[in-house]
Amino acid sequence: MVEDRRFSYDGLWGAKAARPAVRGRGAGGTRIDFAGGRPDPASFPYAELAEAARRVLATDGAAALNYGEAQGFIGLRELLAEKYRRDEGARVDPDNFLITNGSAHALQLIVEALVEPGDPIITEAPTWMGAVHAFRVQRAEILTVDLEPDGMNVDQLEDHLRRLKAQGRRAKFIYTIPTFQNPAGMTMPLAKRRRLLELAVAYGTPVIEDDAYGDLRFEGEPQPSLLSLDTEGSVIKMGTVSKILAAGLRIGWIIAPKEAIGHFMTVKLDGGTNPFVSRVAAEYLREHMDGHIADLIGVYRRKRDAMLGTLGEYAPEGCRWTRPEGGFFLWMWLPPGTGLQRLSEVCARNGVGFMPGTACYPDGRGRDAIRLAFSFPTVDEIREGTRLLCEAIREAGTGS
Amino acid sequence: MVEDRRFSYDGLWGAKAARPAVRGRGAGGTRIDFAGGRPDPASFPYAELAEAARRVLATDGAAALNYGEAQGFIGLRELLAEKYRRDEGARVDPDNFLITNGSAHALQLIVEALVEPGDPIITEAPTWMGAVHAFRVQRAEILTVDLEPDGMNVDQLEDHLRRLKAQGRRAKFIYTIPTFQNPAGMTMPLAKRRRLLELAVAYGTPVIEDDAYGDLRFEGEPQPSLLSLDTEGSVIKMGTVSKILAAGLRIGWIIAPKEAIGHFMTVKLDGGTNPFVSRVAAEYLREHMDGHIADLIGVYRRKRDAMLGTLGEYAPEGCRWTRPEGGFFLWMWLPPGTGLQRLSEVCARNGVGFMPGTACYPDGRGRDAIRLAFSFPTVDEIREGTRLLCEAIREAGTGS
Repeated sequence: MVEDRRFSYDGLWGAKAARPAVRGRGAGGTRIDFAGGRPDPASFPYAELAEAARRVLATDGAAALNYGEAQGFIGLRELLAEKYRRDEGARVDPDNFLITNGSAHALQLIVEALVEPGDPIITEAPTWMGAVHAFRVQRAEILTVDLEPDGMNVDQLEDHLRRLKAQGRRAKFIYTIPTFQNPAGMTMPLAKRRRLLELAVAYGTPVIEDDAYGDLRFEGEPQPSLLSLDTEGSVIKMGTVSKILAAGLRIGWIIAPKEAIGHFMTVKLDGGTNPFVSRVAAEYLREHMDGHIADLIGVYRRKRDAMLGTLGEYAPEGCRWTRPEGGFFLWMWLPPGTGLQRLSEVCARNGVGFMPGTACYPDGRGRDAIRLAFSFPTVDEIREGTRLLCEAIREAGTGS
Repeated sequence: MVEDRRFSYDGLWGAKAARPAVRGRGAGGTRIDFAGGRPDPASFPYAELAEAARRVLATDGAAALNYGEAQGFIGLRELLAEKYRRDEGARVDPDNFLITNGSAHALQLIVEALVEPGDPIITEAPTWMGAVHAFRVQRAEILTVDLEPDGMNVDQLEDHLRRLKAQGRRAKFIYTIPTFQNPAGMTMPLAKRRRLLELAVAYGTPVIEDDAYGDLRFEGEPQPSLLSLDTEGSVIKMGTVSKILAAGLRIGWIIAPKEAIGHFMTVKLDGGTNPFVSRVAAEYLREHMDGHIADLIGVYRRKRDAMLGTLGEYAPEGCRWTRPEGGFFLWMWLPPGTGLQRLSEVCARNGVGFMPGTACYPDGRGRDAIRLAFSFPTVDEIREGTRLLCEAIREAGTGS
């Protein structure tokens, strides 16, 4: 294609404010990848999905292969509504769901529908790098609240809300991952969930509850979801099959009051989320969901334990890390003085990938920490990779 | 779900400029649907797609079910690059492609990446209603150029470009569907294509060539694509499998200079277009594309001929319509004085659906015309529906 042109797309682009570059996702060629939040490939139900695809095409093919409902396949929305009613006690029906191309797309729709450039939003930090990216692309003013061992600091949250109110402004939403947080792995207890919702209602600011990992609890007591605790219609929830079935299906959803769903649909111009894959996912989940999730809990618990065990054995003095009760991630603070850049170089040489903490903050913080995903490598690879990482931390710390 | 809340999403939404409502797509419950540009369900290769899905999951399942390349599955991009090189003589390679969730999503990405609210864009009118919607959602200033029997009026185009230049402004792009236009069915001849590109280059304004139907030519000489005629990198092209394979797969693409692809990726936050379906589509197309397209040409030619034949026999005095050489649509001008609202009512009673011309204009024009899609109903339904439509036009015309 002719790339040497008389006019420049950069010039066109330059008319818009600068936007951040796209980050790569996942392995990046590392041999043992703790960077990407990728599900375990050995757990994918290959044959069952092939059979689900065959059945969908044989019995409902004409609908599966043509344009579908703008809100998403009703059969999937019914199945999900039933799941959330049963598992969370949420008062939802299929009209409260909008099926999306994964939960990154769900958040993009929410942000596009609600945020004008310069509008304030509030997020815990560190947080999911995809969320940071979505906020930046829409040029939101990003206000952060520190993450603590029991989730976001709600006093800081209240300060933000109060200050905005005094300025005659209002945050467009409060974004949180309250369960098995990405990147840090911690879970917000009930009392803090209640306090968060009280503040949301008092300041007229909705909460976005991002919950990709909540089904994958290895231990401890489940906490009620923000959605189920909400009595004021103040929670918008995001979910996905990426972690409980397969990320490659690109099926996620938004749960929200019907009025808000209508707003999100107005900026969703993709002709409706995949009618074929929505049916394949529904066909599979209808039969296998509970058993498959139970299997996955075993898979990821073993992986977490392999990482925690190896860290306990090999981690250098001064390292601290979270002990997640579920999900894919733990967060590790490096010994003071460890150079993140130097650590990246050593790990690249050893073939071990991790996510630098800086990727999880919108403001340059995170130089003292890394995110480790234990979801993708095998248990043996986790043991080996964690040992190599510990050695690399030692090496980066000594500056050798 | 609690819908009665203490704060309103309408209030939040109200902080953004009003956006247009989402339109329904397709049948809307009509018995014989000429409204939606839906492909023929009898032509879908159900068994072959099931087999393709089985093979993908058996041989490349781990990649198909996990996160994929942000730019889209390389195997599909390679296949498409080869197709465009062979069929159009376009100088493209896989890096010039970005795989999207259908071509509506492709256009949304282009518009989001290039257009700020208030920026001017130029489009032929009437045009695809999905494009009008995308321009409105991004709050572009929409400048229209009339459609003529041989495509857009390029003198009007030049007037717009010249006037904008005098104002120190530049349109972000010129949007056109030059082949089997949606909604009107006409095709732009070579001389006009050349003139369009000259103007684009002279005024530093890229052209978006939307080409969902170009493979489906029933008769007449193929015209070179704008992409293939372009020597200056001034064309961004959109394509899709929706009309040549299945709309329910939601696979489309953008073809553009690499630099522009990078910009579009920056606003594409969906975790990469479906790795599973991209592989299923590539697996099917690799083996069956040419034969399947040849079959489809026969299918849609028969459908077009059924509609044209019935119109020739039954259409009331004063009706005029286009004779498309390919694609899904023809455009019909109603006899002067026919009430579009009245026609809609009669047709709703008779169970016949059509697209009002007004949906295809951004400015309220189109009260004198309708779009008829002959793609979805069977040949018998087309004959019956077209007869009913002709009777309804008569009835709406007499005001009875």
